[in-house]
Amino acid sequence: MGKHEKKSSNVVWHQSHVTRDMRETQAGHRAGVLWFTGLSGAGKSTLAHAVEQRLHAMGVRTYVIDGDNVRHGLCSDLGFSDADRVENIRRVAEVAGLFVQAGVLTLTAFISPFRGDRAQARELLGNDFIEVYCNTPLEICEGRDVKGLYAKARAGEIPAFTGISSPYEAPEHAEIVVPTGSEPIEASVDRVIAWLETHQWLRGEKK
Amino acid sequence: MGKHEKKSSNVVWHQSHVTRDMRETQAGHRAGVLWFTGLSGAGKSTLAHAVEQRLHAMGVRTYVIDGDNVRHGLCSDLGFSDADRVENIRRVAEVAGLFVQAGVLTLTAFISPFRGDRAQARELLGNDFIEVYCNTPLEICEGRDVKGLYAKARAGEIPAFTGISSPYEAPEHAEIVVPTGSEPIEASVDRVIAWLETHQWLRGEKK
Repeated sequence: MGKHEKKSSNVVWHQSHVTRDMRETQAGHRAGVLWFTGLSGAGKSTLAHAVEQRLHAMGVRTYVIDGDNVRHGLCSDLGFSDADRVENIRRVAEVAGLFVQAGVLTLTAFISPFRGDRAQARELLGNDFIEVYCNTPLEICEGRDVKGLYAKARAGEIPAFTGISSPYEAPEHAEIVVPTGSEPIEASVDRVIAWLETHQWLRGEKK
Repeated sequence: MGKHEKKSSNVVWHQSHVTRDMRETQAGHRAGVLWFTGLSGAGKSTLAHAVEQRLHAMGVRTYVIDGDNVRHGLCSDLGFSDADRVENIRRVAEVAGLFVQAGVLTLTAFISPFRGDRAQARELLGNDFIEVYCNTPLEICEGRDVKGLYAKARAGEIPAFTGISSPYEAPEHAEIVVPTGSEPIEASVDRVIAWLETHQWLRGEKK
């Protein structure tokens, strides 16, 4: 027993942890979540990836969580019912929270049309949550219709399509509002980076 | 329309991505998943955190995914039925895969008693999967019984407890086998770090 106790003290009792704070110090910047929201075709994913590219070039640790990398993996068991969409957003927020703990400046790109769901993400992530509203008017998104989804929605082929047959509840207090429908993408990237710099996320100064 | 097309080309067509390869180059090491498996009380979580601490001190980007940070969050909708345990491990593997894409050397600490589940994680993660078998004999784990779980399991108070009333299927081809029951933790940490160095995970040399 004495032998086991000694081993136990070696293996179990000296638990120590690398903390978020230690990871942020190593990274030289604050972690957080840039939560891009907006209509289909508003430019969320494109802007998120363009912002990421700029941040990466600045030496920032980044990762974009979007439909491409969760719908076929983590959330492959989920469909597009209301309950499944809520669960999808919940898991994304939870995973984003893990990335924040890991010291990563995380970017998420989901329509996330309902205020309640975004409020849940904000509650979960607290001061780490930065809402970025990609404010492209519906007529421009529909004019682009990159994936042909608006045409299908108008034809009644897609039920509950955001902006057409299901509401998009625009943010009322987004940290960053980007007129993604009326400026070049580089100007939109500048806007997001400027906000991060003004709010001291990129200099290793925390909270 | 011409106007919209121009905006569209600004916002949608120039999509570019920061890749895993770019993140690994920035980090200066390869990403991957150290998947710690073993009985309850074998020292998985303690060893994972001790390895993380050493790696962090070496400048490596790390994160430990364990029960503490997923059971109350991402997997809070799951219980301990067979199906829920499988789903828990599936989600952990999926999230670990996202962390790998983000350039993080990720450590997971779950009993993960079934070969089939670990095989699924290995299939999902491919060459990024490094199985670490914490090979502490049952009698030592039960002798420690840090959380008092073995006593409860023996008393029949916990159904399907691994090692007592549910099997632990030991790995047959683990990349790293650690005699966590019979050496000081620093020796176990050395073992894992040595494996990573021998297999060139820590020098920015990839694959």
